[in-house]
Amino acid sequence: MKPQSFSDKLSQKWAKGCFVCIGLDTEDLKLNKSVVDQTFDLVCAYKPNSAFFEGAGAEGLETLKKIIEYIHQKDPSIPIILDAKRADIGNTNEEYAKAAFDVLKADAITVHPYLGKEALQPFLNRADKGIFVLVRTSNPGAGEFQDLNVDGMLLYQKVAEHVKNWGENVAVVVGATYPEELKKVREIVGNMPILIPGIGTQGGDISQSVKAGINSKNEGIIISSSRSIIFADNPRKATQALHNQIQEALKNG
Amino acid sequence: MKPQSFSDKLSQKWAKGCFVCIGLDTEDLKLNKSVVDQTFDLVCAYKPNSAFFEGAGAEGLETLKKIIEYIHQKDPSIPIILDAKRADIGNTNEEYAKAAFDVLKADAITVHPYLGKEALQPFLNRADKGIFVLVRTSNPGAGEFQDLNVDGMLLYQKVAEHVKNWGENVAVVVGATYPEELKKVREIVGNMPILIPGIGTQGGDISQSVKAGINSKNEGIIISSSRSIIFADNPRKATQALHNQIQEALKNG
Repeated sequence: MKPQSFSDKLSQKWAKGCFVCIGLDTEDLKLNKSVVDQTFDLVCAYKPNSAFFEGAGAEGLETLKKIIEYIHQKDPSIPIILDAKRADIGNTNEEYAKAAFDVLKADAITVHPYLGKEALQPFLNRADKGIFVLVRTSNPGAGEFQDLNVDGMLLYQKVAEHVKNWGENVAVVVGATYPEELKKVREIVGNMPILIPGIGTQGGDISQSVKAGINSKNEGIIISSSRSIIFADNPRKATQALHNQIQEALKNG
Repeated sequence: MKPQSFSDKLSQKWAKGCFVCIGLDTEDLKLNKSVVDQTFDLVCAYKPNSAFFEGAGAEGLETLKKIIEYIHQKDPSIPIILDAKRADIGNTNEEYAKAAFDVLKADAITVHPYLGKEALQPFLNRADKGIFVLVRTSNPGAGEFQDLNVDGMLLYQKVAEHVKNWGENVAVVVGATYPEELKKVREIVGNMPILIPGIGTQGGDISQSVKAGINSKNEGIIISSSRSIIFADNPRKATQALHNQIQEALKNG
């Protein structure tokens, strides 16, 4: 059986009304498995954060591989976004793509835009995978470069304008902490998928994010929360609450 | 004995007239060791490229740790720049800094500028380490974003202007394939160290790079070559030749 593409998996989750993504920001295999066991029927994606596994060395990378394998076995219909924020010259990106997709078996990856499309081609060439380009990041200091004035618009808008033409497997990242910017990016990129991190601990507002991010098909958003779900007393309850708040926002949208 | 800072190690190499950095773009432990054995008295730094090790999975990461350990044991005075091009929000960068400096024991790392100084603070806080921010990359399509017009200058110049005030352990990356841009960045950043990759296979010109990159103290450059040294029939000869060409350019500068 041919494995499903990232895009197909995601569309099927959206069709079921699932928009929550859980960020796996811990190298604790037991905790990760427990979170997956409790939430797999509620999410549209999982997003393991490479840094937390790398912080535990080679053993951590082995754990990352195991948790991805665990999710694929638990429910092969759930797409996995490796949050690794890679980007180098083309010849090096070949290796990063290999690491993410062939070694770790992720369905998608996050990448930096700074080197441009030409350098990212080895990622873009993987038509069955999702390539999420950073457009507006969720951190408080994101504006230092992303808000620079470029040709009558701001840099993050310019990046969005370029990225929207990079291919069918391309998507963007916009932090939930910037709802105005999210709205602007949605206007620029049309119906492209937008990964929206920063819900929960970072303070992003759910209702604002849904309203600003939703596309013309009433989908297109991946609302991602990490610490406030995985470290919750009851991760399922926290996920269900986030799911419900999204549904509420969609009804009132 | 307190370990030496990245900056001290680098200055001592420069004082000896060493400006060659060898990029370790292979996960082959035997080849890496052989290259180090043949070249350690000629270089100012080694630059292992994380992607090539990650492409080999957890085992590759173990090899990366081993080769860094091997270099530290061979000659503790040689600084090691982990070419990983990381950058995420602050809380995640804590983990990337831990992975690079505490797990892998690198002396320096390369990072993306897109999220700004605030997000990079966990790297910048490591005063004994070197933080190399991408300013102008060596790839053919680098200009897509880096040459955008921002406040009467180009984006890479704006990034250089910001980065020069980020702290004493900060340095920049400018590709040898862009000598005009390199000259401009040197004017902006004063005497900061500049890592200059793209010599050899990528086609950067040695003499132009030295002349455009050298600082007012007749140092400040880390001229990096990867494939054309590590895959040479005789890596020592290739390194010596690059060393000699740099000396020649310095004399005629």
